[in-house]
Amino acid sequence: MSQKLTPRSTDYSKWYNELVVMADLAQHSDVKGCMLIKPYGYAIWEKMRDALDRMFKDTGHQNAYFPLFIPKSYLSKEAAHVEGFAKECAVVTHYRLKAQDGGVVVAPEAKLEEELIVRPTSETSIWNTYRVWIQSYRDLPLLINQWANVVRWEMRTRLFLRTAEFLWQEGHTAHATSAEAIEETERMLGVYTEFANHWLAMPVIQGRKTANERFAGAVDTLCIEALMQDGKALQAGTSHFLGQNFARAFDVKFTGKDGQLDYVWATSWGVTTRLIGALVMTHSDDKGLRLPPKLAPIHVVIVPIYKGEEQMLDIRRRCEPLMAELRAAGVTVKFDDDDTKRSGWKFAEYELKGVPLRLAIGPKDLENGTAEVVRRDTGEKANLPFAELGKRIPALLDAIQQGMFDAALQFRDAHITPVDEYETLKKLLDEKGGFFSVHWDGTTETEEKIKADTKATM
Amino acid sequence: MSQKLTPRSTDYSKWYNELVVMADLAQHSDVKGCMLIKPYGYAIWEKMRDALDRMFKDTGHQNAYFPLFIPKSYLSKEAAHVEGFAKECAVVTHYRLKAQDGGVVVAPEAKLEEELIVRPTSETSIWNTYRVWIQSYRDLPLLINQWANVVRWEMRTRLFLRTAEFLWQEGHTAHATSAEAIEETERMLGVYTEFANHWLAMPVIQGRKTANERFAGAVDTLCIEALMQDGKALQAGTSHFLGQNFARAFDVKFTGKDGQLDYVWATSWGVTTRLIGALVMTHSDDKGLRLPPKLAPIHVVIVPIYKGEEQMLDIRRRCEPLMAELRAAGVTVKFDDDDTKRSGWKFAEYELKGVPLRLAIGPKDLENGTAEVVRRDTGEKANLPFAELGKRIPALLDAIQQGMFDAALQFRDAHITPVDEYETLKKLLDEKGGFFSVHWDGTTETEEKIKADTKATM
Repeated sequence: MSQKLTPRSTDYSKWYNELVVMADLAQHSDVKGCMLIKPYGYAIWEKMRDALDRMFKDTGHQNAYFPLFIPKSYLSKEAAHVEGFAKECAVVTHYRLKAQDGGVVVAPEAKLEEELIVRPTSETSIWNTYRVWIQSYRDLPLLINQWANVVRWEMRTRLFLRTAEFLWQEGHTAHATSAEAIEETERMLGVYTEFANHWLAMPVIQGRKTANERFAGAVDTLCIEALMQDGKALQAGTSHFLGQNFARAFDVKFTGKDGQLDYVWATSWGVTTRLIGALVMTHSDDKGLRLPPKLAPIHVVIVPIYKGEEQMLDIRRRCEPLMAELRAAGVTVKFDDDDTKRSGWKFAEYELKGVPLRLAIGPKDLENGTAEVVRRDTGEKANLPFAELGKRIPALLDAIQQGMFDAALQFRDAHITPVDEYETLKKLLDEKGGFFSVHWDGTTETEEKIKADTKATM
Repeated sequence: MSQKLTPRSTDYSKWYNELVVMADLAQHSDVKGCMLIKPYGYAIWEKMRDALDRMFKDTGHQNAYFPLFIPKSYLSKEAAHVEGFAKECAVVTHYRLKAQDGGVVVAPEAKLEEELIVRPTSETSIWNTYRVWIQSYRDLPLLINQWANVVRWEMRTRLFLRTAEFLWQEGHTAHATSAEAIEETERMLGVYTEFANHWLAMPVIQGRKTANERFAGAVDTLCIEALMQDGKALQAGTSHFLGQNFARAFDVKFTGKDGQLDYVWATSWGVTTRLIGALVMTHSDDKGLRLPPKLAPIHVVIVPIYKGEEQMLDIRRRCEPLMAELRAAGVTVKFDDDDTKRSGWKFAEYELKGVPLRLAIGPKDLENGTAEVVRRDTGEKANLPFAELGKRIPALLDAIQQGMFDAALQFRDAHITPVDEYETLKKLLDEKGGFFSVHWDGTTETEEKIKADTKATM
């Protein structure tokens, strides 16, 4: 770590931007608005994906893969959807290049009859397919999920939080009744909530979007929102009840048990690589990342403290059985024997990377039969009996996971303020931020007034 | 299964096209040239991906994610690469649509300064990044893999075998010496070979592409080729030694241990969803798919033979402990209690879907303490003691995996013909197909003559 991180208190936004790059999570690509997810960041995403995927499968969903491209005309089939999505899209107009003057140019004759849109979301192409897949109540419910990349053109980008291309999952389900579709919408919000709590160690508040902020084409949009350390809320996942809007737009009908034809009821739900941004902003500090063990690519780093190769090899030999025991228990361990770095540099580096536990072991520790164990979340140091580490480390990791959730929960609850007076709300929004529990008459007018006055969202 | 599959002997190509659709693996999408991978097909791909991903990680590789879009100018930086790839590409020229007359049109003012290409492969954007990531020998080897979608425009498409968009993995590694890069090229060819043998149950021949068929930008292209049932070879994976071509094109240099600056040595290697096509064409028959257990989404289907719900429930009750035992052993079991289908229909359906083992259990079987077990690969039927099924089924699945490999190996070896005379080769190519072991002077002229005369490739 050659460079120092801007403290959160100086500039929270700058701190975030620096940390994501310095901790090797991601970087901006040469293509404006796109990001490049580096191995350390991608390893976190893989753990998120695997955990969510198991939860989706446990609730009866199957994965499939729909095309990257959507014919332009599809976007305008659902009236509200076109308003929301047919704007900032990447448009493919040609399908061939040709060599010219040592470079390449677009071949003008290779122009598509109908332009193709790089999917910003897949409701339109999926519901166009469901028309063929769904004929009878026996084909329902249809519970499909897709892991994919999507593109929504953005000029002002922030790594993970807002990028033109991002990775996500999109669930698209079809049901025979409104009640079943609403139940599914709520079930998936529940899955997201459980994932946020137990994996991200990030307590969330379940909410309902106002008509203004609803997904384009949805009847109802549920969401989970988390509180970042700067007192701002971050939307972490959404689950939409789409009613029969897409079924009508794409003419998807089914024959019920009673022999009657009716339009199908729909949901869609998604979370994105933005969750990595939320993870960073919920837990990290001025030293770097703090990763909850369930999503950390490395759980434990062992830094040998030695003089000369012989001492290092001795420490390694003594650590081998411990590492084998930990790996068998599902713990990822790294033994850092890099001879070109000082141990102080290594300590700072693994703090920056958010590795939950650091062990430092020198010749004296070996003599005493102990090791220095440092928790990344609390900074707590302890000299533990070396012989007990194989048992105690998995328990410590569980304690860290729980401790991080508890700390985030405490922070959040300290930032939920009940307010009765509008003037008080305006004052507190300036001073404190956080969530405010308020009275609202439920109208769009009031929502817009509050937003105009305070920039707060409902 | 309402429709009957065209027999392989009548029209092998038609049989393949029908089978892929009827077995619910994939279908053509409305976007010309693109496919839609259905849940059953995607479940096979997930198993392939997971197995390969473990093998990549076990050989020291990490995953990352690079952008979907590549600036047009990048494609022309490596002279041979531009020839091969800067042709049939999807070109993004605009980034906004606008509403007009109830539809949407491309906003002419939202034209990109430089067009973006939807990646046909990622060497160019990855090597442009490696210039920043690689400074010294300490940064090497750099062993990165990416799972992604890519697009190569195709007019004549076949599901899985040739589509405009497909899913794949692309490994991109950087090394300090030519020898290390060549070793990596061979190592990954070995990984592909092992995967083909042990997972796909598909014996492959390792080969080297001629200068004509080499990857655009490679110094050497190694490949694995499998023999399909129609006697034609199918390329199943490639591993390229790229020399210093991309390092030169993107100016990627490193300081060696000796302090000298030199260009980095490179490899790239990939397999695609085409492997699903290879799997189908290697093993399947006129009744449908035959899936090797290691890649089958369902290992065992239990079809209860019953009259009335009570009998069905009784059979299910008796099967519950068996299913729990099998699931604990990693075996995926489906109990098909669909009341709307006859058991004959179900038998045909699971044959079509290639489920490796089918159990049929009726009241008489319960009395006798047996079950009828049918192997999909050989059609072999046996009445086995019900109490032993929990132990015998995992062993049977292993035997099926091995049996399928042995059968495919025997078929392949029966179709490798050593030929000494050119006239004999031409005759046998017409009559028999398969692999021919021939003498070749190594020249492009001879290769082209053989191709022109016989359509065979080296």
